[in-house]
Amino acid sequence: MKKIAFAGLGAMGLPMAKNLLGRGFQVSGIDLNATALAALAEAGGESAPSAAAAVADADALILMVVNAAQAEQILFAGGALAALPAGAVVCLMATCPAGVVADIAERVRAAGRHFVDAPVSGGVAGAKAASLTIMAACAPAIYQRMLPAFQALGERIFHVGEQAGQGATVKTVNQLLCGVHIAVVAEAFALAAKVGVDLEVILEIMSGSAAASWMLRDRGPRMLQAEPEVTSAVDIFVKDLGIVLETGRETRCALPIAAIAHQMFLAASGRGDGRADDSQVIRSYYALNGTR
Amino acid sequence: MKKIAFAGLGAMGLPMAKNLLGRGFQVSGIDLNATALAALAEAGGESAPSAAAAVADADALILMVVNAAQAEQILFAGGALAALPAGAVVCLMATCPAGVVADIAERVRAAGRHFVDAPVSGGVAGAKAASLTIMAACAPAIYQRMLPAFQALGERIFHVGEQAGQGATVKTVNQLLCGVHIAVVAEAFALAAKVGVDLEVILEIMSGSAAASWMLRDRGPRMLQAEPEVTSAVDIFVKDLGIVLETGRETRCALPIAAIAHQMFLAASGRGDGRADDSQVIRSYYALNGTR
Repeated sequence: MKKIAFAGLGAMGLPMAKNLLGRGFQVSGIDLNATALAALAEAGGESAPSAAAAVADADALILMVVNAAQAEQILFAGGALAALPAGAVVCLMATCPAGVVADIAERVRAAGRHFVDAPVSGGVAGAKAASLTIMAACAPAIYQRMLPAFQALGERIFHVGEQAGQGATVKTVNQLLCGVHIAVVAEAFALAAKVGVDLEVILEIMSGSAAASWMLRDRGPRMLQAEPEVTSAVDIFVKDLGIVLETGRETRCALPIAAIAHQMFLAASGRGDGRADDSQVIRSYYALNGTR
Repeated sequence: MKKIAFAGLGAMGLPMAKNLLGRGFQVSGIDLNATALAALAEAGGESAPSAAAAVADADALILMVVNAAQAEQILFAGGALAALPAGAVVCLMATCPAGVVADIAERVRAAGRHFVDAPVSGGVAGAKAASLTIMAACAPAIYQRMLPAFQALGERIFHVGEQAGQGATVKTVNQLLCGVHIAVVAEAFALAAKVGVDLEVILEIMSGSAAASWMLRDRGPRMLQAEPEVTSAVDIFVKDLGIVLETGRETRCALPIAAIAHQMFLAASGRGDGRADDSQVIRSYYALNGTR
């Protein structure tokens, strides 16, 4: 594993690609955004003229795109799969529904390439710090082949199964907790605001009590800002909780709390806040309850 | 502050009273359970013949009973308030609705005693380890008088305001997060079980990812047991999320996620699991979705 083509140089993808460069991998970037490609080139990466050119002599293609549709676009319509050397690895790290991942894996394997279903958790901060959690599903030999790259990207690396879709499923369960934890912090803050308790005091106390969550500590401070920096957008959880509920529908599993949380993110997006920081789901509670 | 009367020697109250003894306070116990009184006496405490006798020469009366009704019973019908020396402190540490706390405070002050509204967070483990979070509302001078006792009971001690009810309100917001965090772990595990992912793997991954919460790490392992030890019962959250929703009703604040979580605890209690460990709210999800 020497050369990696990396598709999707966004808020998470670009620092991940840089971390691969930092560990001595050759990295060839794929992105529609010329600025992102230039940033990768400045860090020592390659800026290929097309996706097919980027993967031509790569050992693996990592896909850190927004959703499954973009992954399919690059792999199939965009010609990357056909241009990737036979026996190379396609590693899908975006958050996608398990069923779609299994379908993509089938087409990749039918074309004589290996497939790894390896979504991540940890957000932009984890991508930058190379401290991501990686949940990989693939054959053990392929896992061993990808492991040095995973170790360049994350700290907690799990081989969760051999079937494509198992990584996506673990990530789906992860996102159920993440999305609800953000929404419930907003709900708690909305109640505190309504009864007139200082939210800074609430944040300090809850961050160290049994009420604490990773999301409370990370999103809580940004929830108290009117226009915080965007580290992950509301629309990401519109998508990810959508995947959670799609998985519930497919498996006939009622998920009442996740369904409510999804509604609050949906409403925020519908009011025009889809690209705001996801902490701003609190605006749905303020809109609903007439506080702020 | 030398002698403290302590009412409510339950799973939390008894270790708290012992921690006061360990720091050199005289402690006189009040409880209907003779075994609990005997356990306190064995640890060096006093077992008074009545609540009135227990408080007769006390500097403070701490109430760590189950609910506001029990606190009112001891203080008013039980005669403890009348028997407490003038100028002594009544310190209510049980989880009660803010409005009821304000009413009790009014009656205590009218009788010439001081009142402290000081609920705690941290559960039985925090009570035993003297690592509780304490959220106290009272006049600054009375806070200073109680502080040595609080330092014997907890590690994170906050003076959240001067009005009785403000401590209860902060605790209410805390319990909203705690109760929902337990229920949503159950929901996530139910989905994982439905799609056939190993729950031990899920627990290990989520405990260190952005999906982590204090409750996931504490209740998650017990959720995987069929009959775990009871550290806090389902009925405690039937009560505490009930207080959350009562506060929402009083202030006209919609709390849709807390309302759903409450239903899951209610259903567990209704099926006969009210005295089971609160992690067993997961049985509501198994009942609902037909998994296990």
